[in-house]
Amino acid sequence: MSNFGSDNVTGAHPQIMAALSRAAAGSATPYGGDDWTARVQDRLRQVFDKPDLLAFPVATGTAANALALATVVPPYGSVLCHADAHVQVDECGAPEMFTGGAKLVPLAGDHGKLTAAAVQAAIDHAGVRDVHRVQPAAVTLTQATEAGTLYGLDEVRAISAVCRAHGLALHMDGARFANAVAALDVAPAEVTWKAGVDILSFGASKNGCWAAEAVVFFNPALARDFVYRRKRSGHLFSKMRFLSAQLEAYLEDDLWLANARHANACARRLADGLGQAGVTLAHPVQANEVFAHLPPPVRQRVADAGFVVIPWGDLGPDAVRMVCAFNTDMADVERLLAVIAGRAG
Amino acid sequence: MSNFGSDNVTGAHPQIMAALSRAAAGSATPYGGDDWTARVQDRLRQVFDKPDLLAFPVATGTAANALALATVVPPYGSVLCHADAHVQVDECGAPEMFTGGAKLVPLAGDHGKLTAAAVQAAIDHAGVRDVHRVQPAAVTLTQATEAGTLYGLDEVRAISAVCRAHGLALHMDGARFANAVAALDVAPAEVTWKAGVDILSFGASKNGCWAAEAVVFFNPALARDFVYRRKRSGHLFSKMRFLSAQLEAYLEDDLWLANARHANACARRLADGLGQAGVTLAHPVQANEVFAHLPPPVRQRVADAGFVVIPWGDLGPDAVRMVCAFNTDMADVERLLAVIAGRAG
Amino acid sequence: MSNFGSDNVTGAHPQIMAALSRAAAGSATPYGGDDWTARVQDRLRQVFDKPDLLAFPVATGTAANALALATVVPPYGSVLCHADAHVQVDECGAPEMFTGGAKLVPLAGDHGKLTAAAVQAAIDHAGVRDVHRVQPAAVTLTQATEAGTLYGLDEVRAISAVCRAHGLALHMDGARFANAVAALDVAPAEVTWKAGVDILSFGASKNGCWAAEAVVFFNPALARDFVYRRKRSGHLFSKMRFLSAQLEAYLEDDLWLANARHANACARRLADGLGQAGVTLAHPVQANEVFAHLPPPVRQRVADAGFVVIPWGDLGPDAVRMVCAFNTDMADVERLLAVIAGRAG
Amino acid sequence: MSNFGSDNVTGAHPQIMAALSRAAAGSATPYGGDDWTARVQDRLRQVFDKPDLLAFPVATGTAANALALATVVPPYGSVLCHADAHVQVDECGAPEMFTGGAKLVPLAGDHGKLTAAAVQAAIDHAGVRDVHRVQPAAVTLTQATEAGTLYGLDEVRAISAVCRAHGLALHMDGARFANAVAALDVAPAEVTWKAGVDILSFGASKNGCWAAEAVVFFNPALARDFVYRRKRSGHLFSKMRFLSAQLEAYLEDDLWLANARHANACARRLADGLGQAGVTLAHPVQANEVFAHLPPPVRQRVADAGFVVIPWGDLGPDAVRMVCAFNTDMADVERLLAVIAGRAG
Repeated sequence: MSNFGSDNVTGAHPQIMAALSRAAAGSATPYGGDDWTARVQDRLRQVFDKPDLLAFPVATGTAANALALATVVPPYGSVLCHADAHVQVDECGAPEMFTGGAKLVPLAGDHGKLTAAAVQAAIDHAGVRDVHRVQPAAVTLTQATEAGTLYGLDEVRAISAVCRAHGLALHMDGARFANAVAALDVAPAEVTWKAGVDILSFGASKNGCWAAEAVVFFNPALARDFVYRRKRSGHLFSKMRFLSAQLEAYLEDDLWLANARHANACARRLADGLGQAGVTLAHPVQANEVFAHLPPPVRQRVADAGFVVIPWGDLGPDAVRMVCAFNTDMADVERLLAVIAGRAG
Repeated sequence: MSNFGSDNVTGAHPQIMAALSRAAAGSATPYGGDDWTARVQDRLRQVFDKPDLLAFPVATGTAANALALATVVPPYGSVLCHADAHVQVDECGAPEMFTGGAKLVPLAGDHGKLTAAAVQAAIDHAGVRDVHRVQPAAVTLTQATEAGTLYGLDEVRAISAVCRAHGLALHMDGARFANAVAALDVAPAEVTWKAGVDILSFGASKNGCWAAEAVVFFNPALARDFVYRRKRSGHLFSKMRFLSAQLEAYLEDDLWLANARHANACARRLADGLGQAGVTLAHPVQANEVFAHLPPPVRQRVADAGFVVIPWGDLGPDAVRMVCAFNTDMADVERLLAVIAGRAG
Repeated sequence: MSNFGSDNVTGAHPQIMAALSRAAAGSATPYGGDDWTARVQDRLRQVFDKPDLLAFPVATGTAANALALATVVPPYGSVLCHADAHVQVDECGAPEMFTGGAKLVPLAGDHGKLTAAAVQAAIDHAGVRDVHRVQPAAVTLTQATEAGTLYGLDEVRAISAVCRAHGLALHMDGARFANAVAALDVAPAEVTWKAGVDILSFGASKNGCWAAEAVVFFNPALARDFVYRRKRSGHLFSKMRFLSAQLEAYLEDDLWLANARHANACARRLADGLGQAGVTLAHPVQANEVFAHLPPPVRQRVADAGFVVIPWGDLGPDAVRMVCAFNTDMADVERLLAVIAGRAG
Repeated sequence: MSNFGSDNVTGAHPQIMAALSRAAAGSATPYGGDDWTARVQDRLRQVFDKPDLLAFPVATGTAANALALATVVPPYGSVLCHADAHVQVDECGAPEMFTGGAKLVPLAGDHGKLTAAAVQAAIDHAGVRDVHRVQPAAVTLTQATEAGTLYGLDEVRAISAVCRAHGLALHMDGARFANAVAALDVAPAEVTWKAGVDILSFGASKNGCWAAEAVVFFNPALARDFVYRRKRSGHLFSKMRFLSAQLEAYLEDDLWLANARHANACARRLADGLGQAGVTLAHPVQANEVFAHLPPPVRQRVADAGFVVIPWGDLGPDAVRMVCAFNTDMADVERLLAVIAGRAG
């Protein structure tokens, strides 16, 4: 495919479609009482080496994030997040809706990343226990970030230490969690609960599924009222096996990591090729997204050749985003590079 | 299948799976900018003979209902509904969440149906323009009802006349709309907008889809802010074609009506056979649901034979619900009847 | 005064005005850090014989009720209340707003009173732990009721026992709490926390104050987030001493009980006189409200004589409400009785 | 008084107490149907030279702001405000609660003021009509600002022009509106509706009242659902005359402006004296608030002499706020200046 606009322009991976087809026949207990859903939770417990985690399938990343935050943030609470975070910028106020009107506090940070220092400063400034002020209740990190960068283990640990010290929950928006784990090459447990993450939005829709995410509570006590909030928001599927069958196939034989590795490799190749062509990158390329400055004539050539890339005005008038996915064809990457370098058109 | 517990114990119809498989390849504009979604709206415009209707796919009936109501009911408004309505009983407060705290006003009515007189009386009693009282803003009907019964055209028209006279919107929860249309044998337009319905939750999940509904606005002006509310509630799918491909296949060659006719015929046969066996029905059987009083020994035989039916305590200690679906095997119906009649076990 | 429409047609008691005048001079720490507020809490601790209660002044009964319920009812929760309760009928959905969309479940009951059996039945019917159903979280009683009747100690205890058994909080709407305590002639502790009440809306506005209520938490742990909710809803007064000075004067030398006893005595005399005149009462008269059936000619005489009484259609076309207050002139009661009896006009 | 901490450490002005005392006797129609409330609206129509404005008394500034914004901002909307605005910083999320979860967008600006350019840039950046983004719905200005500065007429007009161009409502938080009008020496109409302000929170609590504000709609169409929102939030007072009697006295013979002129004059004298003493001001002094940098030894002298001033950490470790009010004694100002200058202690 020649569409580098986003990883959500893709459809579903063949193995996931096959699993859905198998799941379509016969009857099953509705609303999550089915075997697929039970198996997904078991599998996630293995993946994360955490036998007591609780995992709940939902269909969209916005639902996963908003529900996760609503379980730990009261209406008078606040969520500290990066100024470019999806929850702050791209969800039309979903966290505010699900929490009953909590406030998101956008913080600055290079390349899409929060720092422990910035989180600490925000808490210091927040007026803790001052009734006139919303009360910090959670921090949310995006891994991989909206800038296509990664939090290292030490960075997550440092932020979680600040959270612990002040009683805040730590949520990770893992819409591209697979890309992060593949790139960091760490055990999923290391970069999540062992580093202090309480709740993970485990994304799958961008990496081979149709529409499937899991909200993973590493601390099961936090999940106490999740099921009511999920139902109440319309996110409890009657035919839950539809979500769970996707997730089961996604996890089977580590398809999720294979898919992510492929996307990351394509992005790596793209970044390297751009560097060789003298193109300036706007962010380090660490997962499956590439942000670059392309002069207008180059962008014209790219468009003329039938490639879709997305203008990214926040980074400047000549900036674009290019995203690689599980089904990106490396030949398309090479062809795109040739067009950019002026070797093809 | 021998599971008569609900129509949501089913998986997906083969034609719908086939359509999904076809849709899985290639790239598409995300968030509903794809061709499938456009075609579904076109097709619904034909089905309802209404060239300016607006239709929005969502994944669950609860989402469809709550979003539909939220577009027309302010936080200080009320929704008049049957006391047994799904929105009132089975959605864990979703309409309250989506409207920002409106009140549902449950009304009594035989066999799951509201009457125009009951709606009028509720409005008379509501304190219209009294600032101490929530203000009636919408009526919601369920077609087919939770009791498996149907509103006739005259009944819908009478209720909509009351709505019109008082400026209330009329919503129809059509989780089993296909069963109703098939049973009434009317044009979809007749029982909806021509009878005064403003918004329809057009259900498909119970009748052959995995998870797909469409919120249909017959009056497009009412849809003004729907898209923001859908996004904000986490119900805008990035890979929208997943929902739309289901709906397209569902509508193609009137699969939706064929599925519903089959389910209705199974229920009809079940009801007739129960009558012959001397079993008392709790509600008239007009669509695909059967409510009956089964003495304990009969229920034991049914369970022993491997059939799933659902105890329905609201109708009495011996009441059960049996639901037929698009994939119910008529042979299973006959077998169930034989067990109930004591001819098999 | 000849206005028997409500106890809120009154102004403020002279002792309360005098206290306000004294409080007007000088500076004080804002937002409740003042001495008046501290003294009110101390005084309430004495009044209720509960040294660890927490009391928070607010200005309106609707605020008191909605804030009290919001501290113990989650968005997916429900509040069991009488069908005629102020929270259900007369607050334009305030509890729904403050709880983030919880559901009020109206229950029937003679003369404005819930029974333990009705509460138990509602819980049995509610679907506890069923994610499709809102979860019962609180019961609210009104004391004295909207019908001018009283819960006896045994009745409160029986209801609180049901609450305890199912983990529900028990709230008491005490808009006319003074009238109830005066009529029951019990210690305030007996009819509240000793009988199992967790939170009381301690009303004062109807009984001599301008605008002052206290939300009283007998279990201080429940008040954990009250102060944030109060601020967030605009009910934290900067010049809190204005509220607290009213409450201090209201409590001083048991002015609250003296006022209530006077109102009750007027209502008692009114009820007795009506009985002698052959007028049918619609509810027993146990506090300061009288509901009676007055034939049209009698109502015309009452109006012609300049008395304000309120038509009360819920009780029938000839029903009226007459309310006595702290400043009702017993001579006016006698005059009203004379008019009703046809002895004057 | 020697408390310069805030203008809300004051009590009530004697004329306002006298008016309350007069209003306390006799009966009146509750919930705003009284004569005081009608007269206040008439008087405000004269004050603002706008015969069709609608004015609604409430008791707190937070209620006024949150209710005003909720009438014009949908749940999926955003409010552009200064980063230091009371609505953003000091109301514990009240606007979020009342709007059902809208987002406040904090903008930078010198000395507490928004600029038209900043508002325009925020709108340009907001993603208007992008369903993933909250939609700009209102701008709110604070006049006088949180920094004690003023918007000139041209500044308000420039901002309102941007609002008009993009369909946003313009709200003015006038907690210190009297101080602004007195300082600007303009007709109230000029700085509000004639400059494009749609809704004003007309503050009185800080300038002589106990607890009284009016939400003033210059465009009465915007007030359509205000009364339901006020009731629903617990801000409709049964004894409304209590609020209205304060406001009537506040407006009578322009007491509001006389009070404000006095407070402003005290602040002017304080600022001038500080300048003579070599103290650096943190903001221009244009109304009744003074922000200054006081070295630790000076602050110690001030505290030792019994004066209350408030540390204002946002402006630096040595910054303090000093506020003058309607009842500030000019002799106290002189005494404070003497202490700061080291001439007294």
